[in-house]
Amino acid sequence: MSELLSDETLDDLLLKDLKLIQKKEGFRFTLDSVVLAHFASVKEGDRIVDLGTGSAVIPLLLSSRLHKYHITGVEIQKDIAQMAERSVRLNGLMDNISIYNGDFRDVHRVLGGGTYSLVTANPPYWSVGEGLVSPVESRAISCHEVSAGLRDFVVAAGKLLNYQGRFAIVYHTERLVETIALLRANRLEPRRIRFIHPFVDKPARHFLLESRKSAPADLKVLPPLIVYQEKGKYSQEILEWYGKGGDGVAGG
Amino acid sequence: MSELLSDETLDDLLLKDLKLIQKKEGFRFTLDSVVLAHFASVKEGDRIVDLGTGSAVIPLLLSSRLHKYHITGVEIQKDIAQMAERSVRLNGLMDNISIYNGDFRDVHRVLGGGTYSLVTANPPYWSVGEGLVSPVESRAISCHEVSAGLRDFVVAAGKLLNYQGRFAIVYHTERLVETIALLRANRLEPRRIRFIHPFVDKPARHFLLESRKSAPADLKVLPPLIVYQEKGKYSQEILEWYGKGGDGVAGG
Repeated sequence: MSELLSDETLDDLLLKDLKLIQKKEGFRFTLDSVVLAHFASVKEGDRIVDLGTGSAVIPLLLSSRLHKYHITGVEIQKDIAQMAERSVRLNGLMDNISIYNGDFRDVHRVLGGGTYSLVTANPPYWSVGEGLVSPVESRAISCHEVSAGLRDFVVAAGKLLNYQGRFAIVYHTERLVETIALLRANRLEPRRIRFIHPFVDKPARHFLLESRKSAPADLKVLPPLIVYQEKGKYSQEILEWYGKGGDGVAGG
Repeated sequence: MSELLSDETLDDLLLKDLKLIQKKEGFRFTLDSVVLAHFASVKEGDRIVDLGTGSAVIPLLLSSRLHKYHITGVEIQKDIAQMAERSVRLNGLMDNISIYNGDFRDVHRVLGGGTYSLVTANPPYWSVGEGLVSPVESRAISCHEVSAGLRDFVVAAGKLLNYQGRFAIVYHTERLVETIALLRANRLEPRRIRFIHPFVDKPARHFLLESRKSAPADLKVLPPLIVYQEKGKYSQEILEWYGKGGDGVAGG
């Protein structure tokens, strides 16, 4: 079961020897997943759900930050869910990470509503009709709101989280205002936000946002996350995530 | 009329020889006003209102960016409005800047609703009951929501602005989510936001936000505004505002 299919690659996450199986042609993980996994507040004992987990890159990266935890990655595409499961086995994390193949819009009925302390998501950025929809179906589902839109992610998180549970997402700045409105409509109060700037003097295209269920309003704007200190050279912060082996930052 | 009262100081704005009269004990302008005056989008021919203008520091600073414009500074406190008027005369800007002594909540009836292209405001940060209310009354009005709250500023801007008119504010990050909700409830769509970080690796405490009346959602997150490059040394960007004479940045 652990072997690679012909349309897959085996990649090194450059973190605690973690490996990841990905489709050659489908959605391949990006720096967004890496920064989200670093950004989310984690606590020992967390019960976590990653919505639209794809290759399970976020559960695998999160696993490196915790000792005692359980993560369920929810993936609607059967072949991708099976691939993710093989990655989990390959890393020997079957006790800590489960992959659930199904639609996350109903998943609270199976996993239990109000029982999770953290939900993560890297939702597709564009509504169908915007941008270029990829002809590769699994990639289209990952990049566009083909199967689920931002609202579905927020509603699902609201149902899964316990009181004061956290919902951490990475998303596109153009849709920040809409995101905040959706979160608040679902009693998820934005508490920590961080903007990702490619360079310190360039606009941010993505943001990291953690909201907390039923919490009072009190937003903290964290220092900007600067990706590159100069062209082709990652910032010190990103290099530090990878210890000394920062040459080839995964997903960069 | 141009002479100083005994409780006033005459300060140099370090910009085109602009001078400013301020109360020794009242609210004295801060870097917030300076950055707001640089941040707001201006266009030749702008008709501008500055809500709660105080010493008229924002109209005076804005004047340096335009040739053809008119700015009305609205100030509820009579002695402060008179002081602002003296500053305007001292700078010879009587044709371009008017001070209106009155409550900005009603000012659209006098100035004309829907007829301004830009409204600016540096609203007080704290609700009454939060923070320490200054025993100096004029300072209390400037720093706390003694006479008008954030909602009043947003409502007033919405009434004054024409179609696609801009509303630029500087405010506290803790109240960003509330600010966005208030703006949208008044058909002011957030379009440009910039966070002010004291240092590049520190959280932002203030943000600059420009919204546009009846515009579609499309938020741009500008590069972070970093105040200090190191302790006691302003960043290059702020020094550049002052040309070579950057030693004593006004209001810093």
